[in-house]
Amino acid sequence: MSLIVQKYGGSSVADAESIKRVAKRIVETRKAGNDVVVAVSAMGDTTDELLDLANEVTPIHAPRELDMLLSSGERISMALLAMAIKGLGHDARSFTGSQAGMITDATHGAARIVEVTPVRLREALDEGAIVIVAGFQGFSRESRDITTLGRGGSDTTAVALAAALDADVCEIYTDVDGVFTSDPRVVKKARKLDRITSEEMLELASSGAKVLHIRAVEYARRHGVTLHVRSSFNNSEGTVVYDPERLPEGEAVEESVIAGVAVDLGQVKVTVVGVPDVPGAAAKIFKIVANTNANVDMIVQNVSAAATGRTDISFTVPKSDGERALKALSDAKETLGFESLQYDDQIGKLSLVGAAMRSATGISAKLFEALYEAGINIEMISTSEIRISVVTRADSVNDAAVAVHRAFDLDGDTEAVVYAGTGR
Amino acid sequence: MSLIVQKYGGSSVADAESIKRVAKRIVETRKAGNDVVVAVSAMGDTTDELLDLANEVTPIHAPRELDMLLSSGERISMALLAMAIKGLGHDARSFTGSQAGMITDATHGAARIVEVTPVRLREALDEGAIVIVAGFQGFSRESRDITTLGRGGSDTTAVALAAALDADVCEIYTDVDGVFTSDPRVVKKARKLDRITSEEMLELASSGAKVLHIRAVEYARRHGVTLHVRSSFNNSEGTVVYDPERLPEGEAVEESVIAGVAVDLGQVKVTVVGVPDVPGAAAKIFKIVANTNANVDMIVQNVSAAATGRTDISFTVPKSDGERALKALSDAKETLGFESLQYDDQIGKLSLVGAAMRSATGISAKLFEALYEAGINIEMISTSEIRISVVTRADSVNDAAVAVHRAFDLDGDTEAVVYAGTGR
Repeated sequence: MSLIVQKYGGSSVADAESIKRVAKRIVETRKAGNDVVVAVSAMGDTTDELLDLANEVTPIHAPRELDMLLSSGERISMALLAMAIKGLGHDARSFTGSQAGMITDATHGAARIVEVTPVRLREALDEGAIVIVAGFQGFSRESRDITTLGRGGSDTTAVALAAALDADVCEIYTDVDGVFTSDPRVVKKARKLDRITSEEMLELASSGAKVLHIRAVEYARRHGVTLHVRSSFNNSEGTVVYDPERLPEGEAVEESVIAGVAVDLGQVKVTVVGVPDVPGAAAKIFKIVANTNANVDMIVQNVSAAATGRTDISFTVPKSDGERALKALSDAKETLGFESLQYDDQIGKLSLVGAAMRSATGISAKLFEALYEAGINIEMISTSEIRISVVTRADSVNDAAVAVHRAFDLDGDTEAVVYAGTGR
Repeated sequence: MSLIVQKYGGSSVADAESIKRVAKRIVETRKAGNDVVVAVSAMGDTTDELLDLANEVTPIHAPRELDMLLSSGERISMALLAMAIKGLGHDARSFTGSQAGMITDATHGAARIVEVTPVRLREALDEGAIVIVAGFQGFSRESRDITTLGRGGSDTTAVALAAALDADVCEIYTDVDGVFTSDPRVVKKARKLDRITSEEMLELASSGAKVLHIRAVEYARRHGVTLHVRSSFNNSEGTVVYDPERLPEGEAVEESVIAGVAVDLGQVKVTVVGVPDVPGAAAKIFKIVANTNANVDMIVQNVSAAATGRTDISFTVPKSDGERALKALSDAKETLGFESLQYDDQIGKLSLVGAAMRSATGISAKLFEALYEAGINIEMISTSEIRISVVTRADSVNDAAVAVHRAFDLDGDTEAVVYAGTGR
């Protein structure tokens, strides 16, 4: 008998009909002879509605109370889901994060999982019940309070449960058919991948692919959890996210050179103009930026103009961090001795990801050529072992993705089907 | 420094604006130098909306899951209320029933409080915080599950907290100005009472007065908690529900003969026609009714007709219990040997309640005369030490209340203001 962990996002349980459909799918998995543990998000827009209510009541959100408020959303969906399954004649029990033993630190709104002690879940499984767990939430032993995990929380709950229960697979049900070679809304001929390595998935997720949250992928990778991304709206096979090193012997998989092309429109570029070209100048700048908790992604330093002894340093950060970084630098203008600051929120980032990039050659040349032929200007470049990223103008990054996707022979024969909405 | 427990019902926290208004009132109580503990219901129609969702998902409601579902309503309101208070610059902390130490048995949907261990509430009070507790919910140590208290739950939560924390008073905020001599929607000249004994309140509540739930009044009486019923929509003085035996010395209160007139349209009359008039016949009938958990209120047995050796026995039960009782009796027709059953759902019950009735004379004569003059027929009569109840046709019970209210000089000078809606 296998143990399968499934995660259903908010769009999969948006209303009573959806909950009934998901209940049927869970029961089918159970009937196929598996133990089933389900992590579920809040219904549809519940979380946003609760946040709206909080904003109406007060502009200041006490983090402890906000977690108490938001965590009620999953209690509603999990209880309804358990009821729906019982209505189908199968035993089901729902558990809050606290009851499920999802122990976190006390950081409200972005709690880290410190331990998972699924004693009650094991008991329920032993008694033959289907187990439903509230995603996104945990419990701090330190503060004795309810916490929430923040972005990607429900995915992370599912992965953490799979790891703690030593599940055979963790199925992430979502509103798309799986992981695609690119965002099907941007690249119409994007192909669904049958398999992708966890390393590639990590790079894609951190490069703007939204199907899985980077945190859940990291957790899965660290604990050797195999992920299976599937649609809750049909029965297609989805995408398996696996660790090649943990493959059963003989099951070697030939890796494609390129797994996918990701687009990220969520970054801004800050340029510090006229920085004195002396040792330590860059260090000082990025220390100040780091102190604002801004997450610096790409960095480019121009070649110094010998005549002036000054240089320009550009970097990208998420839009939400941009103004904070700008203000901190502006406040330190005299200390840093630069001339001016530029802020550019019209950039797009395109990333090419593939595990076989390690050994393959000519990838970057091919990328640059494709962009050149499409008439797209490259403003910044950065690379990792299995990724190349370039920054372009925001309004040309989608065209860039289509061109690159074609150049690397990723195009499928048919157009991908796109569904609306995303889960928490 | 006094410790004041306040309870706000669903209509008092129906939306963000109401929550802000309640927060201000709580802060005023705090500023007046009191420690404040608040029990709060779910917002407005939340509970009904959650029940609707449950019905859409499945007709079979697993009690454990239903409690999990419904208890989320108070988590929302309590977190929002705590946030609103913090927004006003005062420290506030919200606690679930479980966190507040509201320990119950494991009867889902109608859990009984077995113990209140408000350790965390005391800690929060010691640290100067205003404490907000989810009404209606508790936690079973036995099943380790969340429970709900059922009808009157939030009132009971407030009273139980007041008892456990030895509060000076338990203020029940509602959408009416206090306890009235009769339902102001029925008797326009009903007067608000400044004081009423807990014994009278208990009789009124069990006779159909809806302002306080009988269970909360009983709990308050048993634990010596003084209740103060007030409107959350204005600052009028409300009604104090007190125990005369616990009054401070010298503070004797002259009791009025009649505290109020209650009307109950929620009962039905079942008549067992042609019961053999032999010893034990009534006992057999009411044993069968009791086995259906029907709550028998009034019983009338006709004088036996000597010629037939048969008699009729009528009793009243709450509408929700009526059909169950009827079916059980019908199933036992042969054993009991009666001729037929009659079911009458067009009855109304009027009750006259007053502590001084014990010593006063002529009360029932005056009641019957008032009804006679108003042309209203009496079908059944029952009495307790401080109450007389009569059953009339449903469509004349309101006229009866007006007539009796006037006959006992209870009419006020002005018409009472009536608000819509009631809390959980």
